[in-house]
Amino acid sequence: MALIVQKYGGSSVADAARIRNVAKRVAAAKVGGHQVVVVVSAMGDTTDDLIDLARQITDQPDPREMDLLLSTGETISVTLLSMALHALDCHAISLTGGQAGIRTDTLHSRARILSIDPTRVREELARGRVAIVAGFQGITEDQDITTLGRGGSDTTAVALACALKAGECQIFTDVTGIYTADPRVVPDARKLEEISYEEMLELATLGARVMHPRSVELGSVYGMPILVASSFADEPGTLIHEVSNMEARNKVRGIAHDRDVAKITIVGVPDRPGIAATIFNPLAAAGLSIDTIVQNAGRDKIADLTFTVTKTDLPRAMQLVQGIVKDIGARDCISDSNLGKVSIVGTGIQNAPGYAARMFETLFQAGINIEMITTSEIRITCVVAEDRLTDAVRALHRAFELEQPDA
Amino acid sequence: MALIVQKYGGSSVADAARIRNVAKRVAAAKVGGHQVVVVVSAMGDTTDDLIDLARQITDQPDPREMDLLLSTGETISVTLLSMALHALDCHAISLTGGQAGIRTDTLHSRARILSIDPTRVREELARGRVAIVAGFQGITEDQDITTLGRGGSDTTAVALACALKAGECQIFTDVTGIYTADPRVVPDARKLEEISYEEMLELATLGARVMHPRSVELGSVYGMPILVASSFADEPGTLIHEVSNMEARNKVRGIAHDRDVAKITIVGVPDRPGIAATIFNPLAAAGLSIDTIVQNAGRDKIADLTFTVTKTDLPRAMQLVQGIVKDIGARDCISDSNLGKVSIVGTGIQNAPGYAARMFETLFQAGINIEMITTSEIRITCVVAEDRLTDAVRALHRAFELEQPDA
Repeated sequence: MALIVQKYGGSSVADAARIRNVAKRVAAAKVGGHQVVVVVSAMGDTTDDLIDLARQITDQPDPREMDLLLSTGETISVTLLSMALHALDCHAISLTGGQAGIRTDTLHSRARILSIDPTRVREELARGRVAIVAGFQGITEDQDITTLGRGGSDTTAVALACALKAGECQIFTDVTGIYTADPRVVPDARKLEEISYEEMLELATLGARVMHPRSVELGSVYGMPILVASSFADEPGTLIHEVSNMEARNKVRGIAHDRDVAKITIVGVPDRPGIAATIFNPLAAAGLSIDTIVQNAGRDKIADLTFTVTKTDLPRAMQLVQGIVKDIGARDCISDSNLGKVSIVGTGIQNAPGYAARMFETLFQAGINIEMITTSEIRITCVVAEDRLTDAVRALHRAFELEQPDA
Repeated sequence: MALIVQKYGGSSVADAARIRNVAKRVAAAKVGGHQVVVVVSAMGDTTDDLIDLARQITDQPDPREMDLLLSTGETISVTLLSMALHALDCHAISLTGGQAGIRTDTLHSRARILSIDPTRVREELARGRVAIVAGFQGITEDQDITTLGRGGSDTTAVALACALKAGECQIFTDVTGIYTADPRVVPDARKLEEISYEEMLELATLGARVMHPRSVELGSVYGMPILVASSFADEPGTLIHEVSNMEARNKVRGIAHDRDVAKITIVGVPDRPGIAATIFNPLAAAGLSIDTIVQNAGRDKIADLTFTVTKTDLPRAMQLVQGIVKDIGARDCISDSNLGKVSIVGTGIQNAPGYAARMFETLFQAGINIEMITTSEIRITCVVAEDRLTDAVRALHRAFELEQPDA
């Protein structure tokens, strides 16, 4: 008898009928002989409704109060799912994050899990119950309620699976798995049977919104197999795990893309020690997340420095950069918000230099200009014009034969 | 500087505007130099909405799950009120029942407070904060969430006031105080400045729905003064406390009435030992609350036994009683659901036999037939036809000169 952790997202429990549907799936897993722990998100729009409620009171809700408020969304879900399981004669009990032993630090709205005390969950499982745990929330040493921020419920599920030494963590969502590219962009994109943590991490970071990188990372550290599958359809999903036989397979596993890209170029940056820190420290202090950075070494100790931010952050970033330009004595700054990123991801890329060449050649053949290039060990990313992004994804998907099944 | 506990009911926090209004009142008390603890109910119809949600899942929700579900209503209220206080630059922190140290037994949906550990509340007060505590909820030794059932938030407030040795517990509601009779029935009913615990207890038990008897009883045991006042109007309320000078005052303090009365008569009950237990045990086991009981001693060891139940409970009670009639060999059972109760309440009644006579005479003069009579030390209750109940309340209010101010 294996212990499995299942996680159902907000759209999977959006109303009573869907909650009953989830209950049937959970009960089936239990009847199948498993010990089952279920992590649930808040129903559909509940979280947004609660945020609206807070905004009716104040523009600047206190993060601690906001966390306690938002935590009620998941608490409602777990009780309803537990009731739905009871109605199927399946023993079940709902637990808040605190009751499930999920201890966090005190960084409200983006708390980190410090430890999990699985005693209560284990007790409930030993009593033959399904343990239904509220996702996204934890409790501090002082018994204050925290929320985990982005990817919170996935993180709850993977962390619980690790703490309980579960056989598998199953993430049920509104997509049927991880695809070689976004199926809305590439109609013949193919669902992957399996993918390595590293590849999934790159895909998640690069815009495949199925799972937050944070939970993939956690799974990777603990070697926890994560199945991503649909809560609506009955078809096999994608297993994220340590892929052993990576050399023998197609080295490019997927094409990721991201439309939320803008770039800022600082023209004529004096080339002196510490100049990069002078530029990026104020941006970091303002909470602006900087992505790709490229510096063109110039003549006469003058360089152009280009980096990307999200489109949302662009106005704020430009405001700061205009000040920085004066401070450091650069010539000017310019921005472009009509950009996107396309990446090829695959564990084998690092050992096969031919892939970069094939990527650039493919984009050139399609008449797509490359604005910036960055690489990691298992990824090559090109920044291109946003209106050519779809073409770029499709051309690369074809060029790397991703529509073909694995050999 | 006094410590006061304020409680605001669901209609007082029904929307954002009302929550801001409550925040102003709380902030004013704080600025006035008090240490303030606030207990809040769920917003308006929240509790009903949550019950609806559960009913969409199952007809028989598990009480433990239901408690955790319902507790979210009060949790939402406390966070919003805290945010509203922050917006007024008033330091405040929200606390769940568990965080406020309210320990209960494990009787879900009607838990009793076992003890209150006021450490956290005291710490927050010492930091200069208003402590905003979720009413109606507590936590068991096993960290499970419970709700306190009827009158729950009032009970939270009075219990906290007692544990904190507060100077006063203030219950803010949608009425302006305790009246000599229901002002909707008796237009010249007068608001009482003060009333004793015992009198309030009888009034509350007898249908004055302002406060649940449970919280009045708690206040009485600990001698905690309870002010009942409006959260909407700025006028003095009614103080429930130990009235010292009771002999000198008008001995009838108020007229209570209750329309929710039905009676069942078992005709021809054999008069043998243990017969009453045989009749009432099955009714108690079915959770039916029996009120007034009258037995007419009959000839030949045969008696008629009459008792009252609520109108809601009548069908279920009659079903049980029909079985009991056969079991004990009684002749028949009959019921009447067109009844009401009217009571005169006052601490002095026990020492002044003239009051009973005046009550009966008044009803006789008004042509109102008395079906049943019961008395306590400070109360006389008559069961009368429901369509004469309003007349009875008005006639008694006049007869005892309750529209006249206290001497």
